[in-house]
Amino acid sequence: MNINANYDNLEQSYLFSTIAKKVNEFIQKNPDKKVIRLGIGDVTLPLCKTVIDAMHKAVDEMGVQATFRGYGPEQGYDFLREKVQLYYKTHNVNLELDEIFISDGAKSDLGNILDLFAKDNIVLVPDPVYPVYVDTNIMSGRKVVFIDANKDNEFLPLPDKSINADIIYICSPNNPTGAVYNKTQLKEWVDYALSKNAIILFDSAYEAFISNENLPHSIYEIEGAKDCAIEFCSLSKTAGFTGTRCGYTIVPKNLGKLNKMWVRRQTTKFNGVPYIVQRGAEAVFTPEGQKEIKENIYYYKKNATLISDTLKECGIWHVGGKHSPYIWLKCPNNMKSWEFFDYLLEKAQIVGTPGAGFGRNGEGYFRLTSFGSYENTAEAMERFRKLF
Amino acid sequence: MNINANYDNLEQSYLFSTIAKKVNEFIQKNPDKKVIRLGIGDVTLPLCKTVIDAMHKAVDEMGVQATFRGYGPEQGYDFLREKVQLYYKTHNVNLELDEIFISDGAKSDLGNILDLFAKDNIVLVPDPVYPVYVDTNIMSGRKVVFIDANKDNEFLPLPDKSINADIIYICSPNNPTGAVYNKTQLKEWVDYALSKNAIILFDSAYEAFISNENLPHSIYEIEGAKDCAIEFCSLSKTAGFTGTRCGYTIVPKNLGKLNKMWVRRQTTKFNGVPYIVQRGAEAVFTPEGQKEIKENIYYYKKNATLISDTLKECGIWHVGGKHSPYIWLKCPNNMKSWEFFDYLLEKAQIVGTPGAGFGRNGEGYFRLTSFGSYENTAEAMERFRKLF
Repeated sequence: MNINANYDNLEQSYLFSTIAKKVNEFIQKNPDKKVIRLGIGDVTLPLCKTVIDAMHKAVDEMGVQATFRGYGPEQGYDFLREKVQLYYKTHNVNLELDEIFISDGAKSDLGNILDLFAKDNIVLVPDPVYPVYVDTNIMSGRKVVFIDANKDNEFLPLPDKSINADIIYICSPNNPTGAVYNKTQLKEWVDYALSKNAIILFDSAYEAFISNENLPHSIYEIEGAKDCAIEFCSLSKTAGFTGTRCGYTIVPKNLGKLNKMWVRRQTTKFNGVPYIVQRGAEAVFTPEGQKEIKENIYYYKKNATLISDTLKECGIWHVGGKHSPYIWLKCPNNMKSWEFFDYLLEKAQIVGTPGAGFGRNGEGYFRLTSFGSYENTAEAMERFRKLF
Repeated sequence: MNINANYDNLEQSYLFSTIAKKVNEFIQKNPDKKVIRLGIGDVTLPLCKTVIDAMHKAVDEMGVQATFRGYGPEQGYDFLREKVQLYYKTHNVNLELDEIFISDGAKSDLGNILDLFAKDNIVLVPDPVYPVYVDTNIMSGRKVVFIDANKDNEFLPLPDKSINADIIYICSPNNPTGAVYNKTQLKEWVDYALSKNAIILFDSAYEAFISNENLPHSIYEIEGAKDCAIEFCSLSKTAGFTGTRCGYTIVPKNLGKLNKMWVRRQTTKFNGVPYIVQRGAEAVFTPEGQKEIKENIYYYKKNATLISDTLKECGIWHVGGKHSPYIWLKCPNNMKSWEFFDYLLEKAQIVGTPGAGFGRNGEGYFRLTSFGSYENTAEAMERFRKLF
């Protein structure tokens, strides 16, 4: 038996373990100091009441023979797919039900979708980037080329026609930078993909944080996108589902065989999302659910605004924070990412994430997140102000 | 962009859609006749009380900030892994915690595990077989060879040393035949795998139906298995989790790189099983949970015994039914699988599954399942007796 040798080409990431180690060492040396963590990539507010009520009801159904549910459709129950369909309509996107696939989260489907593509495709990924895009392609032996996201393009790179790419990753609002493409910019990517016969894998996991309605929530708001794009979304950040696991993937029928291939992939290698979780997800899309999740998003965005305003006050260059839970800043005084990490921990007891952990172009940058409590975020920003 | 052309080599399966079509036609022509379905591959009894209570508690925790859970460990929470570890100990198998991976079901992991292996491995699959083993390998372009399961070997084929295989699938108790390997037979497979440097993918999804304690629940009851086998199990049939989605996969550290590769695969392409579901699964392994699920299994096995006894009475050759929810019978009067399907529907209004749908060697055989109600199963067997 031979193993998949591509795994040997993966780089080990020590980003979060190194952070944890440094923070623990600091705390042991300084037990009296209060460390504030603004590096958290996970939500902290509980699930909203409407979701909790729906899940209790579903649990009860599972305990009674007449309402018990066994195997469900691998692509998800229609009650939830219809809700997703209606949600897209609010952004003027019309989808057919069988273009909507309920998933256990964007991460799974972003990895698994690669099953549908040949090995010899060239993959184009912006740098810095969510590491999963690169790692999943290295695992399957594909060639990855990078396009630079940097201060000059405000971390929103546009296509370079001289590069030939077959599979293109776009994440907007972006992780880790929080930058958001506008419609004109996204149209450039769609036109580029169509001209290259390429496919865009569009990660819209943070779309719920967009507040300017001129900015696109979905790539399908762009003409031509249904002919070249698959979209991945998740309720993780939208509704606090990081530990509940539900999302959705859109594979338009315009993409020829890919829709049917994805049906085949999912019916063969997946058995659907738990009924209870799908009922919880359905509740997110009710009027009450929408009201409640928006309150939570508003809470996080108030933190983001506070961070963003403070950085502006201190004259620190940054993107994100407006339509995203992430703020991506240039380390002051030309510090390197890890240098700034140590400085911030030592001088202000604030923990963030060194940008260098997200790619070559992340060096010299730093990510803060808005998922902490308002009180802690405010205290951290007070310390920031004193420092700069 | 090039698609994965291996998908073109998949055969479309019309097994269950053809069955549905035939049954619907019969019902339309004979609206007064009561059709009894003994082809169901899904559980019908609701989740047991202990599981329901645990899930309600977990839902409540998710609604309160202090007990809310976000991202969990991709490999599963220790509270559940420890329960699986203890369960294996009851079969005298000692596992380390980091050899146990909580999954969303055996089907997902049986497909996804193939990520770890090179394309040039030769895959050995018994025929007849659960179609997923074959399809997942065709999707990734591997060569599949078959070993014959038939009446002569009581549908328990033993290794043929002249065949070189790298990846070997074994399902015991078997789907679709219900046949179970004993320890001596499994030892032959383990020795064969070790001699070929092959890996066994052991599907033990039906182990909870074994009632003779001399029969192995796990391949790790066999000496040497930790050096050559990965095991997949599921709570789907054990505890009625087909719509709740939880299972576990064992990747022993003795398998060299594979354990670490699986960690990397899962942390990159998976985000774990919902917290609520893991708490439900944990409850399955409590003394009350075990008592309750055993009552459900006993209910199904009473049906299986009834079917098996009736077939014996009628002089119809069969395997399974003793340690499995499935009964695999030779069609009477040398009928072919679909011929017998039509005959049984027409003469006795019983629906089963034609064995030909599971592979070449399934022709002339038929699968009945014990997942119906006792009353319906008893009525169906009454009709069987009258017919034969």
